[in-house]
Amino acid sequence: MTQCFQKMAAPGRKVLIVYAHQEPKSLNGSLKNIAVEELSKQSCSVTVSDLYSMEFEPRATRNDIVGCLHNSEQFNYGAESWEAYRKGCLTTDIVEEQKKVQEADLVIFQFPLYWFSMPAIMKGWMDRVLTQGFAHNFPDCFDAGLLKNKLALLSFTTGGNEEMYSKGGISGDIHYVLWPMQHGMLHFCGFKVLAPQICFSPEYETEEKRKEMLTTWAQRLKTIWEEKPINCTPEWYFR
Amino acid sequence: MTQCFQKMAAPGRKVLIVYAHQEPKSLNGSLKNIAVEELSKQSCSVTVSDLYSMEFEPRATRNDIVGCLHNSEQFNYGAESWEAYRKGCLTTDIVEEQKKVQEADLVIFQFPLYWFSMPAIMKGWMDRVLTQGFAHNFPDCFDAGLLKNKLALLSFTTGGNEEMYSKGGISGDIHYVLWPMQHGMLHFCGFKVLAPQICFSPEYETEEKRKEMLTTWAQRLKTIWEEKPINCTPEWYFR
Repeated sequence: MTQCFQKMAAPGRKVLIVYAHQEPKSLNGSLKNIAVEELSKQSCSVTVSDLYSMEFEPRATRNDIVGCLHNSEQFNYGAESWEAYRKGCLTTDIVEEQKKVQEADLVIFQFPLYWFSMPAIMKGWMDRVLTQGFAHNFPDCFDAGLLKNKLALLSFTTGGNEEMYSKGGISGDIHYVLWPMQHGMLHFCGFKVLAPQICFSPEYETEEKRKEMLTTWAQRLKTIWEEKPINCTPEWYFR
Repeated sequence: MTQCFQKMAAPGRKVLIVYAHQEPKSLNGSLKNIAVEELSKQSCSVTVSDLYSMEFEPRATRNDIVGCLHNSEQFNYGAESWEAYRKGCLTTDIVEEQKKVQEADLVIFQFPLYWFSMPAIMKGWMDRVLTQGFAHNFPDCFDAGLLKNKLALLSFTTGGNEEMYSKGGISGDIHYVLWPMQHGMLHFCGFKVLAPQICFSPEYETEEKRKEMLTTWAQRLKTIWEEKPINCTPEWYFR
């Protein structure tokens, strides 16, 4: 697959940061702040969805549909939320997140890796916001996904170190962990996926090393609009 | 790695089913019911955690720790929940789930695959219940994980069909999706993982085919205690 991706100038570009950490003083908090700062300097418009502060609801339930159900005899979340999207009957917090996504050129997900995945509060964002009809609509998925003109990037911290997350390490290649998130969630919706930003094991690193992680991220963001997306195919993950 | 696993007789065995579906009349609901029925027939003691009915909290927050924090200046969920576990200061709903896990010989997770993973409500169960000190405590992880005398099994339904989830299919080999859940969550805590029970694409199948899915599951459960766990290494997943 050849990726043709238009080079975008920064000013006026819109960025959504979906952020999931309980502590503003955490490294995740600093990584989020640095992104806001750096992208604002480039005259991008930056919006942050701070999921814990918002007390974002992760559970996909009947409450997500305002008013009557299409089939109240047997509740089917996927079918009901799709129908509700079409009729404009999704609950407010979902609609607000969808608006932010719709406007964004780039969505950055900032989180600590929990159990080889994202924290439940962010998984709930995926479950509830990326509704059929809005983000995908078979066969409009993967390269034809409805969010295909957008970029996405996972930025996360890990507990284990880089050696553990190598091919021979006890946690296996970090690429394995990326597959469900980058391919199954983001690429499925059409997002062009930029290379992940991974801070390995900051808790066990020196203060100096942690500062370096912040600087590296800030540096990368300076030229983020020139980056080419990864080739999101099995070969990228399972070499 | 050679798996030596003692053959267990059914009577008296304890099973916990962690169940995440909003609709009792769904196939997931039926799969759960059939497991309760079949295992009860074998005189196993079966407990169900019906996460949606319980309105289970998926968000890992400060509320999970009763009383004072170890470090209230900078909240670290992993460190605080570990400390709270040791001091007996975890919130009641977590303690209750941990008791159920502690007593179980086998934990079955019954859910629909959402975004190449489990629904957020179940991910939250993993995030909050499998506390350090209770389920793992480095280097007591993977084969040495604290739940190493227990079995676990993922039983789930998918949206995509089996062809889509094959090696050359657009969703990639289903084994790729299993890695974070079976290796990163279950095996990390020491669980011996039984082969997953996967019902591909029941929504697009005939009523007859769906009934067959239930029968197959019931049949398998008759000899579940004789099964040998999978060899939970990268080779099993990324052949």
